[in-house]
Amino acid sequence: MSEQKFRQERDTFGDLQVPADKYWGAQTQRSLLNFDIGGPTERLPPPLIKAFGVLKKAAAHVNMTYGLDPKIGKAISDAATEVIDGKLMSHFPLVVFQTGSGTQSNMNVNEVISNRAIEMLGGQLGSKKPVHPNDHVNMSQSSNDTFPTAMHIAAVTEITRDLIPALTTLRDAMDAKAKGFAHIIKIGRTHLQDATPLTLGQEFSGYVQQLDNSIERAKGVLPRLSLLAQGGTAVGTGLNTKKGFDVKVAAEVSKITGLEFQTAPNKFEALAAHDALVEASGALTTIACSLHKIANDIRYLASGPRCGLGELSLPENEPGSSIMPGKVNPTQCEAMTMVAAQVIGNNQAVIFAGAQGQFELNVFKPVIIKNVLSSIRLLSDASRSFTKNCVVGIEANEKRIGQLLHESLMLATILNSHLGYDNVAKAAKKAHKEGTTLKEATVSLGLLTPEEFDQKVRPELMLYPDEA
Amino acid sequence: MSEQKFRQERDTFGDLQVPADKYWGAQTQRSLLNFDIGGPTERLPPPLIKAFGVLKKAAAHVNMTYGLDPKIGKAISDAATEVIDGKLMSHFPLVVFQTGSGTQSNMNVNEVISNRAIEMLGGQLGSKKPVHPNDHVNMSQSSNDTFPTAMHIAAVTEITRDLIPALTTLRDAMDAKAKGFAHIIKIGRTHLQDATPLTLGQEFSGYVQQLDNSIERAKGVLPRLSLLAQGGTAVGTGLNTKKGFDVKVAAEVSKITGLEFQTAPNKFEALAAHDALVEASGALTTIACSLHKIANDIRYLASGPRCGLGELSLPENEPGSSIMPGKVNPTQCEAMTMVAAQVIGNNQAVIFAGAQGQFELNVFKPVIIKNVLSSIRLLSDASRSFTKNCVVGIEANEKRIGQLLHESLMLATILNSHLGYDNVAKAAKKAHKEGTTLKEATVSLGLLTPEEFDQKVRPELMLYPDEA
Amino acid sequence: MSEQKFRQERDTFGDLQVPADKYWGAQTQRSLLNFDIGGPTERLPPPLIKAFGVLKKAAAHVNMTYGLDPKIGKAISDAATEVIDGKLMSHFPLVVFQTGSGTQSNMNVNEVISNRAIEMLGGQLGSKKPVHPNDHVNMSQSSNDTFPTAMHIAAVTEITRDLIPALTTLRDAMDAKAKGFAHIIKIGRTHLQDATPLTLGQEFSGYVQQLDNSIERAKGVLPRLSLLAQGGTAVGTGLNTKKGFDVKVAAEVSKITGLEFQTAPNKFEALAAHDALVEASGALTTIACSLHKIANDIRYLASGPRCGLGELSLPENEPGSSIMPGKVNPTQCEAMTMVAAQVIGNNQAVIFAGAQGQFELNVFKPVIIKNVLSSIRLLSDASRSFTKNCVVGIEANEKRIGQLLHESLMLATILNSHLGYDNVAKAAKKAHKEGTTLKEATVSLGLLTPEEFDQKVRPELMLYPDEA
Amino acid sequence: MSEQKFRQERDTFGDLQVPADKYWGAQTQRSLLNFDIGGPTERLPPPLIKAFGVLKKAAAHVNMTYGLDPKIGKAISDAATEVIDGKLMSHFPLVVFQTGSGTQSNMNVNEVISNRAIEMLGGQLGSKKPVHPNDHVNMSQSSNDTFPTAMHIAAVTEITRDLIPALTTLRDAMDAKAKGFAHIIKIGRTHLQDATPLTLGQEFSGYVQQLDNSIERAKGVLPRLSLLAQGGTAVGTGLNTKKGFDVKVAAEVSKITGLEFQTAPNKFEALAAHDALVEASGALTTIACSLHKIANDIRYLASGPRCGLGELSLPENEPGSSIMPGKVNPTQCEAMTMVAAQVIGNNQAVIFAGAQGQFELNVFKPVIIKNVLSSIRLLSDASRSFTKNCVVGIEANEKRIGQLLHESLMLATILNSHLGYDNVAKAAKKAHKEGTTLKEATVSLGLLTPEEFDQKVRPELMLYPDEA
Repeated sequence: MSEQKFRQERDTFGDLQVPADKYWGAQTQRSLLNFDIGGPTERLPPPLIKAFGVLKKAAAHVNMTYGLDPKIGKAISDAATEVIDGKLMSHFPLVVFQTGSGTQSNMNVNEVISNRAIEMLGGQLGSKKPVHPNDHVNMSQSSNDTFPTAMHIAAVTEITRDLIPALTTLRDAMDAKAKGFAHIIKIGRTHLQDATPLTLGQEFSGYVQQLDNSIERAKGVLPRLSLLAQGGTAVGTGLNTKKGFDVKVAAEVSKITGLEFQTAPNKFEALAAHDALVEASGALTTIACSLHKIANDIRYLASGPRCGLGELSLPENEPGSSIMPGKVNPTQCEAMTMVAAQVIGNNQAVIFAGAQGQFELNVFKPVIIKNVLSSIRLLSDASRSFTKNCVVGIEANEKRIGQLLHESLMLATILNSHLGYDNVAKAAKKAHKEGTTLKEATVSLGLLTPEEFDQKVRPELMLYPDEA
Repeated sequence: MSEQKFRQERDTFGDLQVPADKYWGAQTQRSLLNFDIGGPTERLPPPLIKAFGVLKKAAAHVNMTYGLDPKIGKAISDAATEVIDGKLMSHFPLVVFQTGSGTQSNMNVNEVISNRAIEMLGGQLGSKKPVHPNDHVNMSQSSNDTFPTAMHIAAVTEITRDLIPALTTLRDAMDAKAKGFAHIIKIGRTHLQDATPLTLGQEFSGYVQQLDNSIERAKGVLPRLSLLAQGGTAVGTGLNTKKGFDVKVAAEVSKITGLEFQTAPNKFEALAAHDALVEASGALTTIACSLHKIANDIRYLASGPRCGLGELSLPENEPGSSIMPGKVNPTQCEAMTMVAAQVIGNNQAVIFAGAQGQFELNVFKPVIIKNVLSSIRLLSDASRSFTKNCVVGIEANEKRIGQLLHESLMLATILNSHLGYDNVAKAAKKAHKEGTTLKEATVSLGLLTPEEFDQKVRPELMLYPDEA
Repeated sequence: MSEQKFRQERDTFGDLQVPADKYWGAQTQRSLLNFDIGGPTERLPPPLIKAFGVLKKAAAHVNMTYGLDPKIGKAISDAATEVIDGKLMSHFPLVVFQTGSGTQSNMNVNEVISNRAIEMLGGQLGSKKPVHPNDHVNMSQSSNDTFPTAMHIAAVTEITRDLIPALTTLRDAMDAKAKGFAHIIKIGRTHLQDATPLTLGQEFSGYVQQLDNSIERAKGVLPRLSLLAQGGTAVGTGLNTKKGFDVKVAAEVSKITGLEFQTAPNKFEALAAHDALVEASGALTTIACSLHKIANDIRYLASGPRCGLGELSLPENEPGSSIMPGKVNPTQCEAMTMVAAQVIGNNQAVIFAGAQGQFELNVFKPVIIKNVLSSIRLLSDASRSFTKNCVVGIEANEKRIGQLLHESLMLATILNSHLGYDNVAKAAKKAHKEGTTLKEATVSLGLLTPEEFDQKVRPELMLYPDEA
Repeated sequence: MSEQKFRQERDTFGDLQVPADKYWGAQTQRSLLNFDIGGPTERLPPPLIKAFGVLKKAAAHVNMTYGLDPKIGKAISDAATEVIDGKLMSHFPLVVFQTGSGTQSNMNVNEVISNRAIEMLGGQLGSKKPVHPNDHVNMSQSSNDTFPTAMHIAAVTEITRDLIPALTTLRDAMDAKAKGFAHIIKIGRTHLQDATPLTLGQEFSGYVQQLDNSIERAKGVLPRLSLLAQGGTAVGTGLNTKKGFDVKVAAEVSKITGLEFQTAPNKFEALAAHDALVEASGALTTIACSLHKIANDIRYLASGPRCGLGELSLPENEPGSSIMPGKVNPTQCEAMTMVAAQVIGNNQAVIFAGAQGQFELNVFKPVIIKNVLSSIRLLSDASRSFTKNCVVGIEANEKRIGQLLHESLMLATILNSHLGYDNVAKAAKKAHKEGTTLKEATVSLGLLTPEEFDQKVRPELMLYPDEA
């Protein structure tokens, strides 16, 4: 390994050596030393860093309208654009478990943008000239309003650009299956026990409804997430900022992202509580519950091949067992249900953290946004993987489905109105005890003739309400 | 104790002795014997029973339009009205931990209404004549669609009639305080450390915003909760019901309750998943987090009387200690934060249960609705208690607040734009180290004259953004 | 209704009217008025009240050794015995959501015992003479040490007397089944897919192991739960008590209960944290997970009767459907899995509350013990119900089990060592694709003769490791 | 970037291109393609990979005693040693959200070790000769027993080698503080309100006790975690392995790790349930609650510097605010409390996943171990960081502590036995209302002379029980 080179950076606590090939400064370096917790996998997630880029760019634009030197403002904006584009991701090494306000991450962004802007303007890294991290990049801002602003920008962006499209893809694939399976009549199951029939298309239509609702739920949290804390500065009063700064920043963020944001009506709430993210996490958890139900159903319906329910066949994507040849497992369902478990866990971290705001600040900000973004990403990725590697390839085993349907005793339900509940119960129980068909039992009890039975007990008549 | 009398009731499993003074029948009695789990405190909550009354009344009205004998229909409706009015509550002894579909509770309702209707019509209890629990009270229904329908009716009713008014009461009381405290400037606290000032009114305005949002969140879950499963019968197909029954029942439920309900667009989803209640529980949990934050702040602000923050005085409602004379504790805050803990726990039960639907039915219905209704009730009751016994009586200790404000070093922040961040930091640190005032430190460092200091460092100038 | 009569009681806040037929005093009455949260179902659970009886009796005995008038001490002891015996339960009306230290419940106990003792001694209720609730019943005690002491006494008692016996009953019933099913060879299922065979007895032996572990886990939390806070008084120092009081009380509690208790080695921890109950709740949750797994397996194995796995038959305890005649559902499994959901929820409430101790006191005491006792009771009751109404009546459907076993392709695994993994995989896949038996596929691929196949592929050889 | 080179690998599903510089094979590559969920931060954690190295090495050693060619066995052992040493970490790219049994991760290990061993023996990567991933590296094993074995090895190793030492370090640092603060008398606080005094050393001794208990809790889960599933193969029967293999592997693992392991007494339980890890997660969560309480107390005690409690000073590690000069925040406490939130969330994921075993296999294995190992690592790292960067530098502000103590009214408690509770309450209330000292109030009420007051009200007499 070649020798690593360093340069000197400085903050109010003194000088520090920083790797020469990194744009970060003294406060970032200090945080790295002070918070050796969890390592690289616990770094703040990229969408948050990008959201900070959006914010710093927006702030620079607005600050120029309030008198920031355009040369400096332009350089900040250009450097921030590189943050947005993910080009500087390796310059953001800080972990979640740091200051609870994310102060050092705000400073990390200020330092990186300052140094990159200095570089663009031909200055010297670490000189803070001509672009100062506090005085220029952080102008009219405080960690206490930038971090929650970046949290909201990131959450809205990822829900809109990642989660909703992924859920829509899954929903459409499931809807295609529901339509394709519309003609297949199968046994219903309630309490895991045989029940009255429905079509496989109807069964899948329930999943489509859950996914439609999931999309609605994802959209439903956007209004409160789109409110930005920016302009509150340290405690919510907006001290050291200018009237109108908050509104202009929100407008600029909207312009940069192409998404709708407004300034929060009450900045005290916006710094001291993260209820909007707790609410969002609740919605993500609801989506996780929906996906768990769907994936769980599908793997049970596909269980077998010989000794399970066997109604569906899933695509074979990989060898299933290192010991049992020929075994193929519902692995995409398993990944999805594990994602559900993780999202449910993430939610608990968010709830705990969200309840703990103190006075003018909630200091669990990094752990809140980390878990929310993790849930969004996992649900999005898993929805796409599940769609592509499982749902589109699901096939109905029509022969097996038909066989089970006709062995069932629950078709008897249709006879309730003809024979009365008690008689029908008697026939069903008799068939069950004796292992015969429902038809045999009904006929042998003298309740119907074979012809009457065939005429009345038709599954295709059991799929809808009666005509009024 | 006098000897208890019994009568004989019967179901498809045979005869059973039932207490003579109770309206319930064989299936209820059987459930009592089979599920000796948790005892009376674990009974299904009254709002669910009342919701069942609403549903059975609505169903009777609709069934009359489809041919149910009006004499029978009217008697069912009258008996159901008594259930709605809570007059028959002692006839619903079943616990949460029973069949996961709540089948026996549906039958409990059918049996009680049937027997009470029979009684009204001069018949004999247990005879099932002229009003049969299955054929008449449960006509065109299944446990699988009645129970989730009752769940939704109960949740919508309690959120609308109990929770939202209670939150509004609290919000209004808090808003009155925020307005009353508008003139009191105090030290802000971030990271629990002294920060720039704000008014006590601003601080309380954050709570008002949280409560405004809470009310919005409570309202926000109503659209999906107002969709009723009724008409899906056993597996969602609507078998054994009539076209239009679902729509008519929803309309009738709306009429009876005075609240808006619609029939669910997809009955398969409505039976097999309870995502709408998981979503609602997420919203209730968000509200709990808000209330926890508010109550926690208030008790810290009122800590003391001599050795805490001491900025607020809370009403003295009871003796505080069995050993320390004169001690008064923030007991309403403690009750509220314990309620928050419980709601967070309830939510976890709902999430777990909500994820576990199987095929055409989720069989965790009773435990889901029990926890949701518990959360609604606790949040409602605690909000009222907190308002009445705490919030309205909160007083600001203006003297103490002023004293702390002026001792603080954080007023220095206003000097940033005059002296630069680094100079100001130097002065603040000096004062901190030496235990002097900020003024003394600033002057002794030669940064300002005493007169300049007094002119510039005025808390009342630190409460808002600067004029642009 | 006859007119209710009242008597006057008094505390440091003034006079209050109290129902004449109740032993409680002014502080209890005041709490009733101040905490109208949740109603009777939210009262503190009976085992906690009984534990308070134990404690007050023990304290009276010890206080007599330190000079308490024996006449008074004896009367307190006698009244406390009635509390232990549950005779005075209707005199404890306070709900969980009160003071977070449970102060008013400690006073409720003091008041009831004082008044009952006064009555026994021929005095006048409310006179506080000759038995004063504070000076005598609460002698050398504070709410801050009595409440956590009662929490531990209650938890240890219920785990020992209720939960462990209930789990043992279930374990023994399951073990009997495991032994009874030792000869039944069945298909194994991993990933819900057919796998290599095992005996039904082996499958059930896994449940027995889980239950053995559950019992161990329940026992494992007793050592730390058996440490009593008593003697710490208000903040842990033991102010206003006597040296040795703590040790003597623990000894006396052991004597009264017949269970082992010691005084806590550090009273500061014992008042300010409830980690031992968080730990216990974690163990209860682990038990809930075990029971969920067992109950879930059993209902799937019993699914059918025609269209599920159908390997087990469960006892038919009640009619299964109000619309589908003859349907019998795994209702005991459903009750058990709902209990698991509730315990998981309770645990979350305990965790949240347990993390929130402040300085010398955790003020979430009532909500912590309520949830822990709820979990213990539900697990105990459900274990008994599940045993009695389900496990003992489980029957194996040997015919069905045999049929599935022999249709399976996974018996192929035994051929790995003879034919190599790749060849065996080929045969299994061929049979799967073509719907033939494994034997047919193996023979047609020329891998084995029919005779060789029959000789090698014997499920009974697949149940154990090979001889070394 | 130079062009990436590939080589061909093969599994039962066919051929796949694999990066030429990686040791993994076809099944790993297939998993990468099929599970694009979460990206690199969601990879299975290094301690699990290392544990797999331990297991494969142990299995090779044991397999040699059953006839595995020593040349092959030795090569496997050597390659596995490199896995243990972390040298091959970049060859394990698979994410948590894959097959729920971790099958592909087992195969990843088999493939990497096979190819590395082939390389060591001069063979060709991908040739599976002379070291076959299934036939040799996975000999006598199945994913279903290796993955849970590696889970337990990793958990035991990390708890023993990382967590317990880290907690011990923290405990010792806290104990040193407790001893150093033994002489400092301070006001106690219960309900956040002033209470009777204690020493700062006593207060810290409560934290020491919590940490002692935490260490005990961490040790307490080891017995059940040290039981290994190895030898159960696919469903728990041990098919395709040899008698004694399980015991020998456990012994060999013990030898390699220097830690105690035994073979699990029931392999069916060991594959189908992960109760031991749910139990462990419960213990980790209890530890998190303890640490949350400690860190939360410390930050409140250090709140200020001017407007909080101000009893402690924490080390200043970094600039506190990007806007408020001179502000220093309790950042290590914040990191710790965020870790607590995350561990509480992780626990919920583990509980959910742990409850969901199905028949012979729990298929949430990767998500369970990921969350448990995350909790262990975060608690360990945070304990070290908190010790080094906070606890060792905590200083008591004795002047401030003394000031608060003597302003307090709660010293009155000591007068209870002299003047009676009601008189003392009167004096305390009078002083509180009038803003005077307790002494002034007591004297002016004629309860004591000034001299008597000074003689009796001495905080140093209030720190312990009275002599008996």
